[in-house]
Amino acid sequence: MTIDHPSFGRIDDDRVIIFDTTLRDGEQSPGFSMNLAEKLRMAEALAELGVDVIEAGFPVASKGDFESVHQVASTIRGPVVCALARSGGKNDIASAGEAIRPAERGRIHNFISTSPLHMKYKLRMEPETVLELITAGNKAARQFTDDVEWSAEDGSRTDPDFLCRCVEAAIKAGATTINIPDTVGYATPEDMARIFADLKARVPGADRVIFSAHNHNDLGLAVANTIAALAAGARQIECTINGIGERAGNAALEEIVMALRTRQDVLPYKTGIQTQNLLRTSRMLATITGFDVQPNKAIVGRNAFAHESGIHQDGVLKNAATYEIMTPESVGWTRSSLVLGKHSGRAAFRDKLKAMGYGEMDEAHLNDAFARFKDLADRKKVVYDEDLVALVDDEARDHARIRFISLDIEAGSRRPARAELTLEVDGEARSGEANGQGPVDAAFNAVRAIFPHEATLQLYSVGAVTEGSDAQARTTVRLEEDGKLVDGQGADSDTLVSAVRAYVHALNKLLVKRARTEPEALSVTA
Amino acid sequence: MTIDHPSFGRIDDDRVIIFDTTLRDGEQSPGFSMNLAEKLRMAEALAELGVDVIEAGFPVASKGDFESVHQVASTIRGPVVCALARSGGKNDIASAGEAIRPAERGRIHNFISTSPLHMKYKLRMEPETVLELITAGNKAARQFTDDVEWSAEDGSRTDPDFLCRCVEAAIKAGATTINIPDTVGYATPEDMARIFADLKARVPGADRVIFSAHNHNDLGLAVANTIAALAAGARQIECTINGIGERAGNAALEEIVMALRTRQDVLPYKTGIQTQNLLRTSRMLATITGFDVQPNKAIVGRNAFAHESGIHQDGVLKNAATYEIMTPESVGWTRSSLVLGKHSGRAAFRDKLKAMGYGEMDEAHLNDAFARFKDLADRKKVVYDEDLVALVDDEARDHARIRFISLDIEAGSRRPARAELTLEVDGEARSGEANGQGPVDAAFNAVRAIFPHEATLQLYSVGAVTEGSDAQARTTVRLEEDGKLVDGQGADSDTLVSAVRAYVHALNKLLVKRARTEPEALSVTA
Repeated sequence: MTIDHPSFGRIDDDRVIIFDTTLRDGEQSPGFSMNLAEKLRMAEALAELGVDVIEAGFPVASKGDFESVHQVASTIRGPVVCALARSGGKNDIASAGEAIRPAERGRIHNFISTSPLHMKYKLRMEPETVLELITAGNKAARQFTDDVEWSAEDGSRTDPDFLCRCVEAAIKAGATTINIPDTVGYATPEDMARIFADLKARVPGADRVIFSAHNHNDLGLAVANTIAALAAGARQIECTINGIGERAGNAALEEIVMALRTRQDVLPYKTGIQTQNLLRTSRMLATITGFDVQPNKAIVGRNAFAHESGIHQDGVLKNAATYEIMTPESVGWTRSSLVLGKHSGRAAFRDKLKAMGYGEMDEAHLNDAFARFKDLADRKKVVYDEDLVALVDDEARDHARIRFISLDIEAGSRRPARAELTLEVDGEARSGEANGQGPVDAAFNAVRAIFPHEATLQLYSVGAVTEGSDAQARTTVRLEEDGKLVDGQGADSDTLVSAVRAYVHALNKLLVKRARTEPEALSVTA
Repeated sequence: MTIDHPSFGRIDDDRVIIFDTTLRDGEQSPGFSMNLAEKLRMAEALAELGVDVIEAGFPVASKGDFESVHQVASTIRGPVVCALARSGGKNDIASAGEAIRPAERGRIHNFISTSPLHMKYKLRMEPETVLELITAGNKAARQFTDDVEWSAEDGSRTDPDFLCRCVEAAIKAGATTINIPDTVGYATPEDMARIFADLKARVPGADRVIFSAHNHNDLGLAVANTIAALAAGARQIECTINGIGERAGNAALEEIVMALRTRQDVLPYKTGIQTQNLLRTSRMLATITGFDVQPNKAIVGRNAFAHESGIHQDGVLKNAATYEIMTPESVGWTRSSLVLGKHSGRAAFRDKLKAMGYGEMDEAHLNDAFARFKDLADRKKVVYDEDLVALVDDEARDHARIRFISLDIEAGSRRPARAELTLEVDGEARSGEANGQGPVDAAFNAVRAIFPHEATLQLYSVGAVTEGSDAQARTTVRLEEDGKLVDGQGADSDTLVSAVRAYVHALNKLLVKRARTEPEALSVTA
């Protein structure tokens, strides 16, 4: 079966339309708002990623939202640009229609609640009034574009018979995509299967439209629900980068796409996503919003392809497929990272040392180093490369060309921040001083004064310092040079000393990287 | 059907055993290692949460791991304490048996790989050898305890006939729990259903043991897979707090438990979890490991019960059930939070002002304030309470008793950090100075010198500062007084000024809280 779609033309039955709502549902969660320039950057990234539809905002909600949708519609080519509107809102449809006017291909997405709870308490409307607004909303939308989507808000908690009537009304009034959101994240995969199978079987005209799933993750089931909807006949999925969105967020685009790609044997669907762009897009969103994904976030989290335990590391070294179901490269990682910790085994330890340039060691030397490593790992949360260097060979400390010696800072709100810094460079003490926007900026400028370099600062963050656990500030500094990224870590009770230690750590790693080719910690492909 | 279990006695068929592996699988992911004291704190919290089994570590892996399991076994009462061991490892079973000896009820969990890929590349063993080791491992474990669990590592990718033979061997050798891990996070819910139904139907002795599911989240399906396993007859689930664990982590305990509780209509299973402790336990783990969950993490994320968009806010105000499928209180939140942003509607705005003590406003005043709020919200990511105060009534700034005026800092590695601070308190400028461990400590001590108070600092963090996006350091400070928690935010190009602003913001919120009862931002129940 194929469908003739107003924006996409004839669509094969195994093709899934990826509708990204990062800029609308994602952006409307607390703390994730983006300004116009940020939305445009994300929209460009989404177009490069290959999404089919970008929901760019809710024009009637504010002047800024209108402007964002209008600008995305004006500049983005490739994906359909979609604007949200209430089916029964006074100026919603007109505002949405005006906002998408410049789009190459534009869509209006109108919605109204259909569940008993929402109709009674939120809309305070009778079901028949809701049906009238569905007809009116979709007809009005068709005045502006042939690509019209209608959503049954709280659809998963809607009476099945009434839902059929609503969908029928929407199709008759001109909707070409029918979306059934699990607005509150309540559904199970079985619910999804039942809802879509029912609609496809019972609603007249169901064979002429695309059904769409929009799942929230309140019970951790958003991805599974989306996949269940596909199996039951949905062919559009609504999702967001990193799974951001209201409350527990939406189904994560990267997880759905990689589940389909990895399990083609049982999920034989195609998307237009360039998967190698997933990590880059995820990182861009995190940078714009200031919220990193957690380390164990699937696909794009720092640990998603990292193995610490000895058993797993040993397996990955022997054959990556033993513990990896997709290649890190397929989603944009450069390689899977082996992080050493107390669970690391002897094989991973030897491999790491080899990668660091130590070549083959004799067994006695290796056993001795491994025993000392296990002791250290019991005491220390993560064993960094520099710890290993110190462990294996005290003379090897020479590998670090730059060392922190001392720092003096003057800062505050009444004068420019000033840093006086002394570093040891290639064994020789060198001092320098610099001003800056704040004390961290001044300290980093002082590093540059002492040891000039081209690398640019990409990220500076201080981990949560909590009472009782760890009184030290743990700082991360990310530097970039010629497309290479390195992260440095520092820890000190003084947050500014910690920052400089992290910067120097990153710089030393960059110098090693320049000097020889070696496997590196996780980094984004340029 | 009921089962007579060596540790739990007779178990009703609808009772699900919660096996928590935060301290083993969770702890073995990069950056999540815990020291002995931290493991003991977590184990106590898990016991209070009501988990049935605590997997405390892998004793043969390191001396520290052995000691942790031994200490947990010595001190924790209530849950079964479990130790991991390789079925074929040289000293694994003896070490595990020794480590759990002090436990009230102890379990040995032995495992070996059963998939073709793992047997060939990781173990380099013939299937018949694996079968012999399964028998030997379980028999050896039974010498130490009657509560023996066996896992088929990479079970979801194992040949079904061979898996049946392995499980049969394990049961014959004395295993009382049979765990089938989806080690690499590859399975779909349909795979899970097939695997467990098959084993229960085909393996002799299957009716005398508990089947267990252990799912990883590499494709975002861990929770759904776990629920599918329950429906197919599994009655133990292995999971972790916050879903931490190797790579993309394990199924999240809090998500599974709340899915079961919320959907009792279709998932009629019981657990022993005290759900109101979920948030506290999640926060404790985040504090210990230094990794916060992302804001949109289901159940325990900062936004899980927060509503920004006007439509959702309006619905929640009218009837919480319109957008909430479980109460925030049921998992330990004090109330769902309404955060104002550009998507907030007029109803939420009015409600917020009322909650802040402004009473009913006349329509003209409200409309004017709402228009100015929308303009501000378009420019600013999040509108804080203090922004609203300024917006509605310039005189209302008097609500903030303490204001930042100026800060001077001297710090560095060669002298104690020193802060000179001036604040306005109740309209009057006051200066003070103090030393500290570092510049942030000194600045906070200076606040205490100027305005003495009992509140303790719970958390201090600086959001990632990234080039191009936002050059300001955004700081969060969490204060606690008499069980009340408040978060303050500050932003400045100087990270130390930002820190003091955040501290002062938190302090002002605490003073308001003391003065009157008002709805407050999300906080953990004491």
